[in-house]
Amino acid sequence: MEWEKFAKELTVETNSKILLLVLDGLGDLPVQGKTALEAARTPHLDALVSKGVCGLTDPVFMGITPGSGPAHLALFGYNPCKHLLGRGVLEALGVGLDIEKKDLVARGNFATLKNDLIIDRRAGRIPTSENENLCRKLNNSLKRQEEIKIVLYPGKEHRFVAKFSGEGLSDSLSDADPQKEGKPRSYTQPLSQEAAETAKIVNDFLDEATDILSDSPQANTILLRGFSKLPSIPTISELYKLKPIAIAHYPMYKGLAKLIGMKIIHPEKGLKALFKAVEKNYSDYNFFYIHVKKTDTAGEDGNFEAKKEAIEEVDSFMPGLLALQPEVLAVTSDHSTPCLLKSHSWHPNPFLLYSQASQPDKVMVFSEKECSQGYLGRFQAVYAMPLMLAHAGKLKKYGA
Amino acid sequence: MEWEKFAKELTVETNSKILLLVLDGLGDLPVQGKTALEAARTPHLDALVSKGVCGLTDPVFMGITPGSGPAHLALFGYNPCKHLLGRGVLEALGVGLDIEKKDLVARGNFATLKNDLIIDRRAGRIPTSENENLCRKLNNSLKRQEEIKIVLYPGKEHRFVAKFSGEGLSDSLSDADPQKEGKPRSYTQPLSQEAAETAKIVNDFLDEATDILSDSPQANTILLRGFSKLPSIPTISELYKLKPIAIAHYPMYKGLAKLIGMKIIHPEKGLKALFKAVEKNYSDYNFFYIHVKKTDTAGEDGNFEAKKEAIEEVDSFMPGLLALQPEVLAVTSDHSTPCLLKSHSWHPNPFLLYSQASQPDKVMVFSEKECSQGYLGRFQAVYAMPLMLAHAGKLKKYGA
Repeated sequence: MEWEKFAKELTVETNSKILLLVLDGLGDLPVQGKTALEAARTPHLDALVSKGVCGLTDPVFMGITPGSGPAHLALFGYNPCKHLLGRGVLEALGVGLDIEKKDLVARGNFATLKNDLIIDRRAGRIPTSENENLCRKLNNSLKRQEEIKIVLYPGKEHRFVAKFSGEGLSDSLSDADPQKEGKPRSYTQPLSQEAAETAKIVNDFLDEATDILSDSPQANTILLRGFSKLPSIPTISELYKLKPIAIAHYPMYKGLAKLIGMKIIHPEKGLKALFKAVEKNYSDYNFFYIHVKKTDTAGEDGNFEAKKEAIEEVDSFMPGLLALQPEVLAVTSDHSTPCLLKSHSWHPNPFLLYSQASQPDKVMVFSEKECSQGYLGRFQAVYAMPLMLAHAGKLKKYGA
Repeated sequence: MEWEKFAKELTVETNSKILLLVLDGLGDLPVQGKTALEAARTPHLDALVSKGVCGLTDPVFMGITPGSGPAHLALFGYNPCKHLLGRGVLEALGVGLDIEKKDLVARGNFATLKNDLIIDRRAGRIPTSENENLCRKLNNSLKRQEEIKIVLYPGKEHRFVAKFSGEGLSDSLSDADPQKEGKPRSYTQPLSQEAAETAKIVNDFLDEATDILSDSPQANTILLRGFSKLPSIPTISELYKLKPIAIAHYPMYKGLAKLIGMKIIHPEKGLKALFKAVEKNYSDYNFFYIHVKKTDTAGEDGNFEAKKEAIEEVDSFMPGLLALQPEVLAVTSDHSTPCLLKSHSWHPNPFLLYSQASQPDKVMVFSEKECSQGYLGRFQAVYAMPLMLAHAGKLKKYGA
């Protein structure tokens, strides 16, 4: 996998446009003989397939179920085994938090302490509103420090994100979480010498927060895990000379896109607004990452009908996308989320690339089964980016 | 890609013969529904396909359009991302120049200088005959030096190759080319300390050549770029214990083959002479690289009919090749040159391997579309060599 090494050298700036439409979790397993994609009526996607080139992608490699981070990084041409996003960073992106290079973030739980033992790692899954109140209380009550600023951001139920801002913070820290119930509170341990000072800051904070929360009946302490900082990752513009924009509803995907230098916008709810945003921004960018969440949500819920309907709804917007006459339109998923499994899986993703320069294969229907017969065969998702760039005329010849 | 590492250990010397027939630029995009290969009548190739095993290859990886250098190196089992041939070396091979380890070569242009500015980087594309006269004049007029010998070799129009021979020359040099017109002459800069002395030699030569050319109306200065030396690359015999011969008409392919230790011959013009040369040399070698240029030339010209005819002509020589009873006959292209694009492209190459030991797949017709359905699937061209060696009984078991 030498693509990243070649990217800077081989890419050229052009006006040609690439649309990458990601139907999150699209890949599926059959339910009563058909996958959601096979069951859905998709005349416009099928028409595209018959003119384009298809295949099946593995986000990382065969058998690996990826999180959304590696799955998307691969689609954007980054080696997902090299660039790792910490859990804390992912969680922070998920709540729409801005993170800077000097920030250290961690996932947090409110938890219940009794007789010096953690008896509930989730504090009885307190309501989100209580979580919000507790975060506000902590943010207001924590002693102000000159050099380090600590802020908690509430998530759903017992979950929050803690952000430590200041110079010299390290993420080389063990989890401050006993992992099991019935054990005492746990402090973070520095995993390298340079993290000793940060560990002290975190552990002082854990004590202080536990003091402040001592009146709460259930949520009277906190656990922190997945300490992480922003990875050092080249932007899409640096690598490919593209002007990229992310058109997505969910914070995590916007955050991830922002991390690699994409312009972020905030479309109104619904697919209509999502696709309208492509049109509105069409002249100002040349790489459009369009993220549809519905397919994944339906898969996670095991809701086959909802997944099928989401696919059919997306299909109805294809003529609008094509009317923009992009040089390349690719449609795929970041990972599979089979309704049967109700979770991300390792199954490959159908991949379709339509372009004037694509070599039509025998595939006539957009489905997992048919895509496996396409010219592209089964390939690692990291090659989607060189393929899209090549078809858009944005790659120079390699060698003489 | 670990093949090169395994090659020496696993290969065994045998008398079995491998014929690798390269139809340069064969892969195509459909014109009026068919590629040149689909349109061509190829009864003999189709018969081979039905008994052999097929696939589609990517010379480097998906999306990458290779030059002839990396594309051929991959077919010979070399990692094309590791072994790079400098532009100067390729150009020198292209004009049929002998290069030795101590030589430094560069691509040159005659150019027009006016009021100390380069006003035409190609000297009005002077006729080749004038180029030849100017090279002769320079070769005769340059001051003889004891340690460094400089010779210019004319190419077409304004192009030439400059060869510097001597001890201690470095190719770590920037281009001596302002790249744009309207700028002053440009000198080479050493890109490492060891290249300082070489840069001085090159820059003195540039001044001297410009003095000698001062009378010429158009071609009154020169530009040099792509400084390069022979790469250090193991030979085919070292890696695979083969006795290889290249049967090709064009200097660049012969030069490239010579670089990796193949015996070079000079067949008469025409495909008949080319294939006759295989027969003539059959008993003395066991690896035959047979290069057909016509298919690529037709693709570069956008001449669909000529490409189709070239393929049909090649097909007619297949019975002759088969009569030799080689253990392996592989037919493929180094890269695609679609008539529609009139240039090399990133599209995959049809690949056919016929042998007594090949596992026949469902493919019955030699075409891009059918090959995509073969057992070999889509694979990197670098694996063509281990496949050919294996089918020829030249690879030992790996591990116990």
